[in-house]
Amino acid sequence: MQAEILSVGTELLLGHTINADAAYVARELAGLGLDLLQVHTVGDNAGRLATAMAEALGRSEIVITTGGLGPTEDDLTKETVAQVLGLPLEVHTDSLNRLRAYFGDRPISANQYKQAMLPQGAVAFPNDVGTAPGCAVPAGEGHYVLLLPGPPAELLPMLHTYAVPFLQQLHQEVIQSCMVKTFGIGEGVAALQLASLTGNANPTVATYAGDMEMYVRVTAKASTASAALALTEPVIAQVRTLLGDVVYGVDVDGLEDVVVTTLLQRGETLATAESCTGGLLAKRITDRPGASEVFGYGFVTYANEAKKRLLGVPEHILDTHGAVSAATATAMARGAREQSGATYGMAITGIAGPGGGSVHKPVGLVYIALNDSAHTWLRVLQPQGRYPGRERTRRLATSHALDMLRRRLTGLDVEGAWAAH
Amino acid sequence: MQAEILSVGTELLLGHTINADAAYVARELAGLGLDLLQVHTVGDNAGRLATAMAEALGRSEIVITTGGLGPTEDDLTKETVAQVLGLPLEVHTDSLNRLRAYFGDRPISANQYKQAMLPQGAVAFPNDVGTAPGCAVPAGEGHYVLLLPGPPAELLPMLHTYAVPFLQQLHQEVIQSCMVKTFGIGEGVAALQLASLTGNANPTVATYAGDMEMYVRVTAKASTASAALALTEPVIAQVRTLLGDVVYGVDVDGLEDVVVTTLLQRGETLATAESCTGGLLAKRITDRPGASEVFGYGFVTYANEAKKRLLGVPEHILDTHGAVSAATATAMARGAREQSGATYGMAITGIAGPGGGSVHKPVGLVYIALNDSAHTWLRVLQPQGRYPGRERTRRLATSHALDMLRRRLTGLDVEGAWAAH
Repeated sequence: MQAEILSVGTELLLGHTINADAAYVARELAGLGLDLLQVHTVGDNAGRLATAMAEALGRSEIVITTGGLGPTEDDLTKETVAQVLGLPLEVHTDSLNRLRAYFGDRPISANQYKQAMLPQGAVAFPNDVGTAPGCAVPAGEGHYVLLLPGPPAELLPMLHTYAVPFLQQLHQEVIQSCMVKTFGIGEGVAALQLASLTGNANPTVATYAGDMEMYVRVTAKASTASAALALTEPVIAQVRTLLGDVVYGVDVDGLEDVVVTTLLQRGETLATAESCTGGLLAKRITDRPGASEVFGYGFVTYANEAKKRLLGVPEHILDTHGAVSAATATAMARGAREQSGATYGMAITGIAGPGGGSVHKPVGLVYIALNDSAHTWLRVLQPQGRYPGRERTRRLATSHALDMLRRRLTGLDVEGAWAAH
Repeated sequence: MQAEILSVGTELLLGHTINADAAYVARELAGLGLDLLQVHTVGDNAGRLATAMAEALGRSEIVITTGGLGPTEDDLTKETVAQVLGLPLEVHTDSLNRLRAYFGDRPISANQYKQAMLPQGAVAFPNDVGTAPGCAVPAGEGHYVLLLPGPPAELLPMLHTYAVPFLQQLHQEVIQSCMVKTFGIGEGVAALQLASLTGNANPTVATYAGDMEMYVRVTAKASTASAALALTEPVIAQVRTLLGDVVYGVDVDGLEDVVVTTLLQRGETLATAESCTGGLLAKRITDRPGASEVFGYGFVTYANEAKKRLLGVPEHILDTHGAVSAATATAMARGAREQSGATYGMAITGIAGPGGGSVHKPVGLVYIALNDSAHTWLRVLQPQGRYPGRERTRRLATSHALDMLRRRLTGLDVEGAWAAH
């Protein structure tokens, strides 16, 4: 079955928004074994959208639109598709009820109301995080147009929960994918280590660069979900063997997920002390519901005075070694643990940039310390190549901190190549 | 002048790569005042590329390709374009010399050599960081095809150094855009309030839903940048008048940007105390380089014990009102300010969910307090309609906190409709 993506939005043609939606949808189509012929981006222009839609339906059975489902006058994807297909728009009761629930006591304006209208005969895809539903519209013998919202926060849940299962059922084959997640290995090296698997036909094995991480997707096709899952299992075991302990989990929701879950299992607790990451480590830990069982105290000690007063970092350490040093990181981690009574103290201090660097302490230099009552582990991140920016530097530092703790909790080498000297 | 982008690469259709190139090129075209009609993405397939190229040249004077200029067999953009235009490929001496310089003593293989071939009559764009040059190929009366490389590290310098000046010399109009940012108004309501402006031809006015915020873009065309900017100014003033004090800035980088900048100007400081947001508020403030001048202390008091010990929240307040209450939020804000010596203390306590809610304190209930030495302001966020999820609840709470502070710093009503009772 052939598919096309039609992305709608003037913001894409002005370059204000990068078309990540097309890649998200493309990945799912590849996972389903659908052949994506092309991606077409047009602005909020009914005439050009109608032309592109008619052309796409002439080539492909499945046309997926992203964007243009919202309440404003610019949002005209649904109206245009209905017109191209000669279908009237009808009130969709479930969507209207959802809209009413969303607005509570507030009135629903006419432009909001239009979101509850769907082309006749469409299968609705509920929007679990916003107001505009998506849908699949029958477009003649074996052809469908799928309408999906533009904002990724709305697109992704709808894609995974409703659109992919809809396409799967058209396609008659069940596909199961598992994502093996790693931290500490690049995609190039991983691809070489996995070379014996990446030619597989079923399950397929593909690497993806994630958010400073690397993921391996193992995808199997079979007639039932359990048969497909059973096919993935030995391959996942091979991936684990080939990549080693950089694998931190399968189908888990990030390093923070593994850390919080493992702390819960062990009945242990963590306190954090952050300088350059300014609360991001605590934020990532508390992203997980239930984190309160394992995390009670976080110290954002951005100022040296705060490091001394809240964490008891000795003045002479700050004077002798500076705030960005292994000694300060160690004292911060110990202070966080002792002040909170937690099992582990985790500290980050560094130079996130873009300012504040020097010859001896360049931008990107970060010290990370993990402390329990018996031992302190350290990693030092040295800037390598081009400065990746403040946000990536901070994110990477928190990922290293979480990786150190997950390694400590599972009995692996904690410091690796990153030990401080 | 109308333009189209034709992106080439199977990796784009598999979703392995997000098509950022199209956005980079689109931004430059908008800046030049060129009207980008559409973006088309095809795989490494000569037939489909040739069809798409012929169609694009039928609609637009300028067609810009990205990708497919490298040395491998998959790279067939240049060959296909030459064929569509009926132009032979010729050795381009400068490019061959550059290739020779790049390889030094190493031999140049046949597939590398093909990179020095350009369609007859093309204007070369040197590749300052790689081996494959780009070019502009004449494609009939006033029409040009521009070939640019796919890797952003090669595309961006070539685009800025050679392709944009080439297009500028063909075209004489400049575009300037400004983004008016708001917090506390929905896109639907804003669109109604701005109805008198959204029909404007120059400058144009358009609304965008941002990350729980709403943006208004004002875009003007003129013969010079300063003339275009001058056209936007009265329209931005009208937008401010129509929307009122929900406008928090123009071309600023989020509420945190305004808060940090205004604190710096006033020589004042902030300390934070967070429960349900777990460090996200501190993280957003420290996203801004230079935040250390205005932010020294952040307390992540996830446990009640931490609220008592670090912030001095009285036990009887926690016992009588509970951790999620106006009284606790007030005590946390005061404690953060007093413990740190900051000008302002800002506290957030609530139920981010999905668990932890009750009849009297449902999931989504959040108290936010801002305290200075003279006064405390409060907002209470009541869950409305459907639960938006943990991440959005936490993000929204921190945006409200930043909005309260920016209103305090600029002398506006701080609590508005959200005051706690």
